[in-house]
Amino acid sequence: MTDMLSPGATIGILGGGQLGRMLSVAASRLGFRTHIYEPSANPPAGHVADQVTTAAYDDLTALRAFAASVDVVTYEFENIPAEALDALDAIRPIRPNRRALAVSQDRILEKDFLTGLGLTVAPYAAVQTLDDLHAAITRIGTPAILKTTRLGYDGKGQARLRSPEDATTAHASMMGAPSVLEGFIDFSHEVSVIAARGLDGSVACYDPGENVHKDGILSTTTVPSRLSPSQRTDAVLLAARILNALDYVGVMGVELFVTRQGLIVNEIAPRVHNSGHWTQNGCAVDQFEQHIRAVAGWPLGDGSRHADVVMENLIGDDVLRVPAIARERNAALHLYGKAEARPGRKMGHVNRITRGIA
Amino acid sequence: MTDMLSPGATIGILGGGQLGRMLSVAASRLGFRTHIYEPSANPPAGHVADQVTTAAYDDLTALRAFAASVDVVTYEFENIPAEALDALDAIRPIRPNRRALAVSQDRILEKDFLTGLGLTVAPYAAVQTLDDLHAAITRIGTPAILKTTRLGYDGKGQARLRSPEDATTAHASMMGAPSVLEGFIDFSHEVSVIAARGLDGSVACYDPGENVHKDGILSTTTVPSRLSPSQRTDAVLLAARILNALDYVGVMGVELFVTRQGLIVNEIAPRVHNSGHWTQNGCAVDQFEQHIRAVAGWPLGDGSRHADVVMENLIGDDVLRVPAIARERNAALHLYGKAEARPGRKMGHVNRITRGIA
Repeated sequence: MTDMLSPGATIGILGGGQLGRMLSVAASRLGFRTHIYEPSANPPAGHVADQVTTAAYDDLTALRAFAASVDVVTYEFENIPAEALDALDAIRPIRPNRRALAVSQDRILEKDFLTGLGLTVAPYAAVQTLDDLHAAITRIGTPAILKTTRLGYDGKGQARLRSPEDATTAHASMMGAPSVLEGFIDFSHEVSVIAARGLDGSVACYDPGENVHKDGILSTTTVPSRLSPSQRTDAVLLAARILNALDYVGVMGVELFVTRQGLIVNEIAPRVHNSGHWTQNGCAVDQFEQHIRAVAGWPLGDGSRHADVVMENLIGDDVLRVPAIARERNAALHLYGKAEARPGRKMGHVNRITRGIA
Repeated sequence: MTDMLSPGATIGILGGGQLGRMLSVAASRLGFRTHIYEPSANPPAGHVADQVTTAAYDDLTALRAFAASVDVVTYEFENIPAEALDALDAIRPIRPNRRALAVSQDRILEKDFLTGLGLTVAPYAAVQTLDDLHAAITRIGTPAILKTTRLGYDGKGQARLRSPEDATTAHASMMGAPSVLEGFIDFSHEVSVIAARGLDGSVACYDPGENVHKDGILSTTTVPSRLSPSQRTDAVLLAARILNALDYVGVMGVELFVTRQGLIVNEIAPRVHNSGHWTQNGCAVDQFEQHIRAVAGWPLGDGSRHADVVMENLIGDDVLRVPAIARERNAALHLYGKAEARPGRKMGHVNRITRGIA
């Protein structure tokens, strides 16, 4: 492949959190250097990167110098301002591409895109005014959830409506931001597919993992998940359809609700995903390396699973359990090097290998 | 444990090669930062480290500043000058300790130490003059191998004697350095035990791996190795005896010859070891993390093997095979980020998972 970056090349990563950190480590395994771009000082990814630029996303001079210093640009989060992307992609390719970013940055664009592919999502309606919200409730009913169309994650920017009477409070909590009302789905469980697509158009998916959330934040992912063989096939084909439609290059997380009526797409994330962390200890090539392979134009790696794994996030004070977890059998710790454990802050995770696969 | 370093602490690593690089990555998984001390510019470990000091081992000012910036000092190679160690251990603990270094820096000290423990080594004799060598040949016979007592590795500083007539040439090749003549051992194969000892005195060993060398450089390590259950027990107990005798803290590589008369110790290395690289893809806690755990005062991790693995070193032009290896199933690549592929230079390795273990 002529586009295959050689070892020694530099991968530019926008965002210096734990995902950037684990991407940087994976890049090192393939002989690449990394350059992290992050507005905050002392980012977790900086501890394991070759270079770090500390600058804001509106600092066009810094963005251009960053782009010029790398061979390809990727990112660990989707909320990158369009102006920053303009400055970067004039100089170096951005992978995954901007269409994937645009679609996933806006919940309404995302749902329109998914339904346009013939996939099922929860009932939804765009909401700006309180009148919009009342109309949406009439159509969708309650319980329902109101979310800002942009910039929400880990349960932030969301308000639940148990009954139509919650409309005023919920609308006020959006503080004027465009939002979307989503109907509740009667699902038995949530799974996610970590899918990858290479520069050559090949697609590979990891075994779907089953997710449990607490307080709107992912708590555990378990592989294998409870899926029938046909559901598993559906999940993988559905993810492949999304990646192909976007001419996607890299790893994507696709969250799915499992219902009696079939699989419903909850949301997509154009990046490595918390629900794919189990691959670090269950596969020869983990999601981080798979992403680096894709954006570097390498062949996708073998993502077949050689162990059953339960991934548990360590959030806030959960890190106090690290000394005990360090003594467990078959437990692989992954800490993020964050100095301060705040409530709701992801501090690390542990992958428990529950069974090897012959 | 009161001596358990907290995440956020800094591990100082002497040496910036591939072992330092993989130690640095393992340290990051436990939330530690690393500071690499290396005389050569642009060391492989520097791509994934928080700090790098580029300075010589006789630069006492740089050594002292390095020691003051870290919480504990460890190393990736054993040939550290005593003066450098003096400067460092006045400021911070060095783990593994200096006795382990002193013993392994000198082949004669090492063999005296091992035989003092009741372990078997190849017949050996100290050689300085050509007359010493003739006397040694009379006692030990040929074939035999003459090695410098210090600073040899990967087949360097060695000369084979097929017959007594080779004595003059072999002696000349030592260029006046003190050396040791070792008798040849009639062994069926070589195995190594990667053993670890914690600050609390607990010992853990990985499954012994079977090594094949080419041109004096490790080529492959295969687990499981060909050992009977009693040989396996002997190997592990023997390694534990060495670590306990040295009050060792960290990971040690113990190379053993398997003979009809039992196990013979070839050499010990007071550090993570090339023959332990398979643990990266065969165990929940690999040798690099195990070493970091030990020197950081953490409990040793679970080194039980969840897969059969064959590790192959990629030496010199072997890296030209990387595009093909990248397409293999169940193959995990580990490249070292070295710019130039010289003959005999270790550029990376690949761990091939040959079977998962239920």
